[in-house]
Amino acid sequence: MSPKQQAAIKAAEFVTDGMILGLGTGSTVQFFVDEVGRKLKEEDLQITGVTTSIFTLNQAQALGIKMLDIDEVDHVDLLVDGADEIDAKFNGIKGGGAALLMEKVVATYTNDYIWIVDESKMSEHLGSFKVPVEVVQYGSGQVFRIFENKGYKPTWRENEEGSKLLTDMKNFIIDLHIPVIDQPEALAEELDHIVGVVEHGLFNGMVKKVIIGSESGTRILEK
Amino acid sequence: MSPKQQAAIKAAEFVTDGMILGLGTGSTVQFFVDEVGRKLKEEDLQITGVTTSIFTLNQAQALGIKMLDIDEVDHVDLLVDGADEIDAKFNGIKGGGAALLMEKVVATYTNDYIWIVDESKMSEHLGSFKVPVEVVQYGSGQVFRIFENKGYKPTWRENEEGSKLLTDMKNFIIDLHIPVIDQPEALAEELDHIVGVVEHGLFNGMVKKVIIGSESGTRILEK
Repeated sequence: MSPKQQAAIKAAEFVTDGMILGLGTGSTVQFFVDEVGRKLKEEDLQITGVTTSIFTLNQAQALGIKMLDIDEVDHVDLLVDGADEIDAKFNGIKGGGAALLMEKVVATYTNDYIWIVDESKMSEHLGSFKVPVEVVQYGSGQVFRIFENKGYKPTWRENEEGSKLLTDMKNFIIDLHIPVIDQPEALAEELDHIVGVVEHGLFNGMVKKVIIGSESGTRILEK
Repeated sequence: MSPKQQAAIKAAEFVTDGMILGLGTGSTVQFFVDEVGRKLKEEDLQITGVTTSIFTLNQAQALGIKMLDIDEVDHVDLLVDGADEIDAKFNGIKGGGAALLMEKVVATYTNDYIWIVDESKMSEHLGSFKVPVEVVQYGSGQVFRIFENKGYKPTWRENEEGSKLLTDMKNFIIDLHIPVIDQPEALAEELDHIVGVVEHGLFNGMVKKVIIGSESGTRILEK
């Protein structure tokens, strides 16, 4: 099994009967959703899923998982998601898959939150991975210029045709390239205050458990 | 002339040849846009307008004002807009017309910013007027519940048919009813940090000039 699969299958052990389960987005989570689908059938569990992207919604429904909108539940028991980079203090960068807004909404309302990754995602400081910022279309060129002036080396997230990618919420994504982010909280604070920024891919202090997969198995970090 | 018209016509005196002019939204601004259209024709001015709502865009274009998107200009010389309530420190509430997001984007990039109002909009503390909060559709029900729990008496902004109003950016608006807002900066800070909040109608410390119209004329407050 691949490291991603190892982590995904380990995470599924935390899924229990009756849960409202947040299903994240990305290649590692795809394995997790498959495994939840398998458990559902073979162990006859009752699971309600909550979407964090249209991609995941479709995958989960195809597996027979009953999916609800976040507004249709009064809480989420467990959210399992991937991450693009995680620092020693469990701050993380997410949004390589452009679903950061819906992912962060669900992350805000979950009781437990697990990230499943392979070893390559762990680092002392954030910054190897770009920080995605979801911005409203109107005025996004001005926000881009602000980032340029701050030295954040912004780039537009594009789709395969080379035009600006639209998120599920019809916003643009600007990626910031900041080599060393030693104060992720301060950067998050700064981004939160920029007019036109809807949300950003810094997930600081939200997770208490990280499952790291490798060829030979998994290890679990807890805070 | 009505108080609104008085204020609007006074504000037009600050419009000079060659300006990039931000045109706000609302009933008072409608008079201002008309007056700018008149000046343009009669005084042969060159004015470029920047939109803050689709309504204003249409009105201005019909008057022959060349309109650009905020991303097509490198600055705005002057923005003239209305406000729903203004406190003694020139903090304000805007968004009765549901255009707060585009208005705030333009307000962020303007060199000068004037509010035109009648006397009824001035108050010692904010709170007579509801604070509009623009939220992404996904998870907006959860945000609504957060506001309920905080005692902010939220209501959904609805259109005439009684369904939730969609802004120009396809978001919802939740109105907060907080009778006395004695710390608008702290409230703005709180709202900025709620996941799903795109922007809010608190415009704190952005304006240096307020023109107040009355039946008998205008007075100008400056900071």
